[in-house]
Amino acid sequence: MSRNADTSTPILPVLAERWSPRSFDTSRSLTMADLTPAFEAARWSPSLSNLQEWRFLVGFRGDATFAAMTEHLSGWNASWAPNAGAIVIGMYEDDPENRGREYAPYDLGQAMAHFSVQAHADGLFVHQAAGFDRDAIAAHFNVPTTWKVFVVAAVGHLGAPELLDETLRARETAPRVRRPLDETVFTHPFPAA
Amino acid sequence: MSRNADTSTPILPVLAERWSPRSFDTSRSLTMADLTPAFEAARWSPSLSNLQEWRFLVGFRGDATFAAMTEHLSGWNASWAPNAGAIVIGMYEDDPENRGREYAPYDLGQAMAHFSVQAHADGLFVHQAAGFDRDAIAAHFNVPTTWKVFVVAAVGHLGAPELLDETLRARETAPRVRRPLDETVFTHPFPAA
Repeated sequence: MSRNADTSTPILPVLAERWSPRSFDTSRSLTMADLTPAFEAARWSPSLSNLQEWRFLVGFRGDATFAAMTEHLSGWNASWAPNAGAIVIGMYEDDPENRGREYAPYDLGQAMAHFSVQAHADGLFVHQAAGFDRDAIAAHFNVPTTWKVFVVAAVGHLGAPELLDETLRARETAPRVRRPLDETVFTHPFPAA
Repeated sequence: MSRNADTSTPILPVLAERWSPRSFDTSRSLTMADLTPAFEAARWSPSLSNLQEWRFLVGFRGDATFAAMTEHLSGWNASWAPNAGAIVIGMYEDDPENRGREYAPYDLGQAMAHFSVQAHADGLFVHQAAGFDRDAIAAHFNVPTTWKVFVVAAVGHLGAPELLDETLRARETAPRVRRPLDETVFTHPFPAA
């Protein structure tokens, strides 16, 4: 089963091949050393005035941080993300005094994109999600109120689709789709939806 | 002069080598075909529930779109960005009816990161900036009020630092720096600033 993006022109294999699975191989574990290249890639992403207004909390399956993170996942995420080797929670500085505040979530997105691309190059898969209790995470990990807990990402080795229940298995194997490029890129005027 | 990131562990060369110059080679021009792989890379970036709530306006040096864009650059950007081969303006859907609204700037950041990485792989350089008149751009290009004009990116072939004035030349050649990884990634508790 190829999950490669059906691109209109060739792009870097690591970008075409990256996708976001929900099935992770629980026989494989991860350590900080396994994720260091991905964090290093995130570190070198661009940000407004090089402010780097992001932080990453990471837990590894089996440790207390990971256990606390999985407790606060919601919906479907609670069923599949705990099988990942690691969970990363991304947060950004959301301080009225921070002149880069408006761009902080944008820059966190850039950092997480770099993280995901490097992780994929290292044989790992990343699935980002929004469904978790941000306030509970902030309280548990003493995140200052000037920081916004924003996104959770499961990271691990790919598992078989058969490990998922029927609904998620169908999503796992459905064709990857995106809006056509000519509805996304324009020269003038703004494209119709 | 190497501009490669000084990483604590090896990462993909395209991620280590990517940086954001201000000097562009005005003897080189760009066409849509040159940017199609980068837009295609952006297209295949991940987004919340695959909503893809981003659009890109693009102008090429010499055309009317580019001219209108450069008119509305502010500050230093007005001095260097017009030398780029193309200017890309990223926008995201900012509609109260959009359930992914809060993640739209984050996802635009991911899309622009993919764009930048692919552009670099194609021998191009990208410099993103926030200093431009968003309202004027929205008005000129008939961007609906439910969309937020957010970021401008100059794209082109690298020029010599000597083409810049003294202040910008110093920035162009200064060592690339980032906060150390152990101040960015934590397991518990939140790291001190």
